Amino acid sequence: MPEKQNNETSSLMKGLSFPEFIQSRKIYVKGSRPGISVGMREVSQHPTVNETGELVETNPPVVLYDTSGPYTDPDFTVAYEKGLPPLRKGWLDARTDLETREEAPHARSTAFPGKRTVRRARSGKHITQRYLAQQGIITEEMEYAAIRENVLMERYSDTLAHRTFPPRQYSAITPELVREEIASGRAILPANINHPEAEPMLIGNRFAVKINANIGNSALHSSISEEVEKMVWAVLWGADTVMDLSTGDDIHDTREWILRNAPVPIGTVPLYQALERAEGKPEALTWPLFKEVLIEQAEQGVDYFTIHAAALQAHFPLTEKRMTGIVSRGGAIMAHWCRYHQKENFLYTHWDDVCEILAAYDIAVSIGDGLRPGSIYDANDDAQLAELKTQGELTLRAWDQYVQVINEGPGHVPMHLIAENRRLQAEWCHEAPFYTLGPLPTDVAPGYDHITSALGGAMIAAEGASMLCYVTPREHLGLPDRDDVRRGVVTHKLAAHAADLAKGLPGAQIRDNALSKARMEFRWADQIALSLDPDHALQIRLQSFPESKSSLEDGFCSMCGPKFCSMRLFRQSCAVHNRPS
Amino acid sequence: MPEKQNNETSSLMKGLSFPEFIQSRKIYVKGSRPGISVGMREVSQHPTVNETGELVETNPPVVLYDTSGPYTDPDFTVAYEKGLPPLRKGWLDARTDLETREEAPHARSTAFPGKRTVRRARSGKHITQRYLAQQGIITEEMEYAAIRENVLMERYSDTLAHRTFPPRQYSAITPELVREEIASGRAILPANINHPEAEPMLIGNRFAVKINANIGNSALHSSISEEVEKMVWAVLWGADTVMDLSTGDDIHDTREWILRNAPVPIGTVPLYQALERAEGKPEALTWPLFKEVLIEQAEQGVDYFTIHAAALQAHFPLTEKRMTGIVSRGGAIMAHWCRYHQKENFLYTHWDDVCEILAAYDIAVSIGDGLRPGSIYDANDDAQLAELKTQGELTLRAWDQYVQVINEGPGHVPMHLIAENRRLQAEWCHEAPFYTLGPLPTDVAPGYDHITSALGGAMIAAEGASMLCYVTPREHLGLPDRDDVRRGVVTHKLAAHAADLAKGLPGAQIRDNALSKARMEFRWADQIALSLDPDHALQIRLQSFPESKSSLEDGFCSMCGPKFCSMRLFRQSCAVHNRPS
Repeated sequence: MPEKQNNETSSLMKGLSFPEFIQSRKIYVKGSRPGISVGMREVSQHPTVNETGELVETNPPVVLYDTSGPYTDPDFTVAYEKGLPPLRKGWLDARTDLETREEAPHARSTAFPGKRTVRRARSGKHITQRYLAQQGIITEEMEYAAIRENVLMERYSDTLAHRTFPPRQYSAITPELVREEIASGRAILPANINHPEAEPMLIGNRFAVKINANIGNSALHSSISEEVEKMVWAVLWGADTVMDLSTGDDIHDTREWILRNAPVPIGTVPLYQALERAEGKPEALTWPLFKEVLIEQAEQGVDYFTIHAAALQAHFPLTEKRMTGIVSRGGAIMAHWCRYHQKENFLYTHWDDVCEILAAYDIAVSIGDGLRPGSIYDANDDAQLAELKTQGELTLRAWDQYVQVINEGPGHVPMHLIAENRRLQAEWCHEAPFYTLGPLPTDVAPGYDHITSALGGAMIAAEGASMLCYVTPREHLGLPDRDDVRRGVVTHKLAAHAADLAKGLPGAQIRDNALSKARMEFRWADQIALSLDPDHALQIRLQSFPESKSSLEDGFCSMCGPKFCSMRLFRQSCAVHNRPS
Repeated sequence: MPEKQNNETSSLMKGLSFPEFIQSRKIYVKGSRPGISVGMREVSQHPTVNETGELVETNPPVVLYDTSGPYTDPDFTVAYEKGLPPLRKGWLDARTDLETREEAPHARSTAFPGKRTVRRARSGKHITQRYLAQQGIITEEMEYAAIRENVLMERYSDTLAHRTFPPRQYSAITPELVREEIASGRAILPANINHPEAEPMLIGNRFAVKINANIGNSALHSSISEEVEKMVWAVLWGADTVMDLSTGDDIHDTREWILRNAPVPIGTVPLYQALERAEGKPEALTWPLFKEVLIEQAEQGVDYFTIHAAALQAHFPLTEKRMTGIVSRGGAIMAHWCRYHQKENFLYTHWDDVCEILAAYDIAVSIGDGLRPGSIYDANDDAQLAELKTQGELTLRAWDQYVQVINEGPGHVPMHLIAENRRLQAEWCHEAPFYTLGPLPTDVAPGYDHITSALGGAMIAAEGASMLCYVTPREHLGLPDRDDVRRGVVTHKLAAHAADLAKGLPGAQIRDNALSKARMEFRWADQIALSLDPDHALQIRLQSFPESKSSLEDGFCSMCGPKFCSMRLFRQSCAVHNRPS
C-alpha cells in the first residue's frame, strides 16, 4: 500500500463492505504446543420447537473450516501497513536448521514499511515439511493443520452416522495421518519459512478439497491496494490459497503487501516477473535472471511457485494441429524461448537447481501444465499427455530434494474424459496432489464459465484432485472485479464440498444434514446461516418477502405458499420427532 | 391476458426487453411434406484474416437448435390475444382418427378470447405418436422433430471429424430413427392434439438433452400476463418445455393464455388444480374430481401431465426416518390422502382410467417421483427406490394403452450415487426417458442452487437422462423473477450441452469448435455470438473495455494484456493456417 494510504486502513477494511454472517463467531481450538491455536467459524442454531412453540430439542452449533484468518476476529484491528501477526514466528525462531538475516526497509514509496527478518536453510540442512515428516517429526504446522482439517468433528458422532456415506478407507484426521500423507508426497503443507503470517493448511486427497483464487494486476489495470483487498476479499469468501499473477508495474511491492497481509499460502508464477525483467522479450530469458527472481520471491515468502518445466522442446510440435494451440502463458513463453534458441526448456535443464532453491525455503512447487488443452477439441491429446509424463519425472526429482510437489492439470476437457486425467496423473505422478483449472467441460459458455469450471472441477475432485483453481464469470472475457471474485470463490466452494461428500470425507455431511434439518423445520435463519453464502441467501429471502419483516420466522416459503407446502403437509401427517436428529 | 391488456401486447413484448443476439437470424428448413418448415437459429461468422488483414479463410455460419418459435421471426407480430399460428392444424385436420367439436368463447374477463376447436380420438381409435410409430408410420411431427434435431449437421462433415469424439453407437438423426425411438418408448414426442401451436420436439436418450423451465403463480404472487411473459422469456432463452405449476387464482385461464402462446410443449401437475377445486383439502380429493380436471386440461392442450401415481400406501412409512420427509408437493398431498382414508393412492388404483384419457388426446405422462429425496441424507433410500419400481410397473401399463411415458427423478443426490439413479431407472422403467430435477449433489448452497442442480444434472444427463428440470438461484428461498429464469435456463443449457458432448451426440461439438477457433483467432464478435448467452458475454466484454468502443476488434483480452497473451505468443511461433479448420 503506498504510504499515502497508511492512514486509510480502517476505511479500506470498511471499503470491502464485507457482510456479517449471521449467527457466526470465531472460535479457537488449542493444540498440544504453544502457539497452536486454530481459528474456526462456529455457526449457532436455534432450537427445534413444535407447532405450539414448545421446545423439542436443541441443535448444536456447526463448526466450519475457516480461511479468513484474523480478519474475522473481533479483537483484531486491520492495519495493512503493519501486516498480520507472524503466527509461526515462535516455531521458526526455535528451529536450529534455519539461519536469519535482517533486511533494511526499502525507500520506495510503494514499498511495505519496516525491516524484515529473512530466513533460509543453514548450509547442508534439509528443512522442508516433507523432509521432517519423513524423519517421523510432527511439526507444529502439521498439528495445526490436522486440528484444522478435523473441525471438531468428534463433537458430531451421532450426526456422522449418516446412511448414504458408510465410512470408506478414511479415518479421523490426526497429526500422525497428516505426517504420513506429507511424507508420502500425497499431500503438501505449503509454508515458506518467510511467510510466518500464513495459517498452515493441507492440499491432498485425504483432506478437504481446496480452492485457489487468482488475483493480480495486468498491464491494463494496476493498483497495489486493489490487489491486497482482492486477496482479503477472496479469503473472506473462502479461498484456501491465493495466486498473485501480477504482470504489470510494482510486481515486487504488490507481492510484499499481499504476503504480509495474507493468512493463506500465496502462489506465483515467477516466469511473469522474469519476463518483465527481460523487458517482455521471451527470448531474453536466462537461467541466471530466472534464478534471481526465484530467490527474490523466496525471500519475500511466496509459498508455492508454478514452474513450467515440463513443457519440452519435443512436445511443442504436438500442439500445431490443435484448435487452440498453447493457452498457458507460461507454456507459450517457454515454447517461444525454445523455438528461438533451438534449445531445451531451461527450466527443465535447470530443474535440480530450481529445486535446490525451493528446498532452502520450503517452497512447494506446482509443476505447470503449459500445454493444457484450451478447448474441448484439444482435450487429452498427445501434447498434454506428453507433458504430464514429464511432470511425473520432475515430481520424483523434486522429491529427491525433499521439495513438496503438486501437479497442475487442465483446462478444457469433456466430461467423459475427466476421470482419465486424474487416473493418469495419479499413476504417472506417483499420487502427488493434483491441482486443476476446471476442467471446463464445454467451450460455449463465456460469461458463465465459473459454472462450467465448477462442474468439471467437482467431477475431477471427486476422482481425487486436491485443489481447484477458481474461474470467475469473467474468464475468457476480462479481468474479474470483486463481485466476480466472490462468485468464483463461492461456486468453487460448492464444487469442492460436493466432491468432499462424494469422496466420503469424514464430517463433510454434518453441514448438509444440519442445513436440511433446519429447512425441514422452517428454521430459516439457521438454513441461511449454514449456507455457503449466507449474505446472498439472506438477500434473496428478504427480496422474496419484501412485505414482511419476519421473513425468517414464517413457517413456509414463497415458492409454494402455505397451502401447498409439502414439508408442512408432511409434518401434519407424522410427528416431528420421528425424524432423525 | 385480461381484455384490458389486449391493446398492450406490443408493449408487452417490448416489456420483455429481450436482447438481440448479434449475428443471428432465423432460418427455416423444409421437410418432405406441406407445413414441415423447421425454424433454426443461424449464427454468421467473420472470415479468418492474418496479421496483415488478408483473408485466410471464410468461416461457415453455425446452425443452432431453436426453441423460441415465431417470437424470433422478424415477420411475426406478437399478439398474445390472438395466440400463435396453429402450426399443426393442417396435419390434424387431415387425420381421420380424430373427432372435433367447437367450443364457445368464455364470458369471463380473464378468458382467452375467441372460440376453439377441441379434438379427441374417435371412439376405438389409437391416435398417439407411440401407436403410430409402432404401426411403422412416420408422422409429420416425427419428420419435423428429426429435421430439428439434425440441425443441418451434414453441412459440417469436416468439422465433425473431431478427435476426442469418435462416433459411438450414434448415427445421423433421421425420421426413421425418430420413429424407432418413439415406438420403443426410449423417446417421446409430447404433442397434445389440442396444442397445435407447439413445435414438435423429442425427449430421449438418443437426442439432445432437453431442459424444462417451471413457471406458475402461487397464492402469494399472481398475474396472468406475468406468467405468459415468463413462458415466452423462458423459451427465448432456450427452455425446451415449460411446466405451468400455478396454484393460485385463475388457474384455467392462465393455462389457456400460456398454451395459446407457447411454441413448446406445456406440462402441468393436474393435482394442483384438483386440490384448488377441493378447497385445499387433500382428503376431499376424489377420482371423479381429478378426472374432470384431467379432461379439462386435456381439452385445453396440455402436452404432458405429471401424475404422482407411484407413491403408494406401503411406501409412506419408509419416509418417516428421513431427514426431510416428503418434499414433492404431489407426494405430500397423496400421502395425506392415503393416511386420511387408509386407502391406496387413487391415482394408482385408477391408473388405467388415467391412461385412457391421456391416450385420447396423445398427452404424455411424466410419472412423478413424489418420494424423491429432499436432502443428501435421504438419497437413494428405500422410499425413493420403492417408488421407482412402481414407476416401472406404471410405465408398462401406460405403454399398453400407447401412452408416451417419461419418469421423473430426483432431487438431492451426492455425486457418487448419481449414476445409480439412471442405471436403476433405465433397468426398472424399461429405458423410458428420465426427467430429473437436478439432482443437487449438496444441500449447502441456497442462492446458488441453479449451479448445484446443473452440476448433478450434467452428470445424470451424461448417464442418459433426457431432460433436466431447471432450478433457479431462488430455489428453496422464493419464487423466481425474470432474471432468475434466465440464469436457470442458461445454466441448465450449459449442463445439457456438456452432457451432449460427453455422450458424443452427433454435431454437438460443432459449436464448441467454432467458438474455440474464433477465440484463438481473436474474432471476439464471433466468440460472443456463438456463446450460450451472447448478451451477457457482450456486456462483460464491453465492461472490461469501457475506454474503447472497438472492444470486439482488439487482438487480445483484458485478462492478460497484449504482452502476456498466450494465444498471441503462440501465433507468433507457428503459422496460423497450421491449425485445424
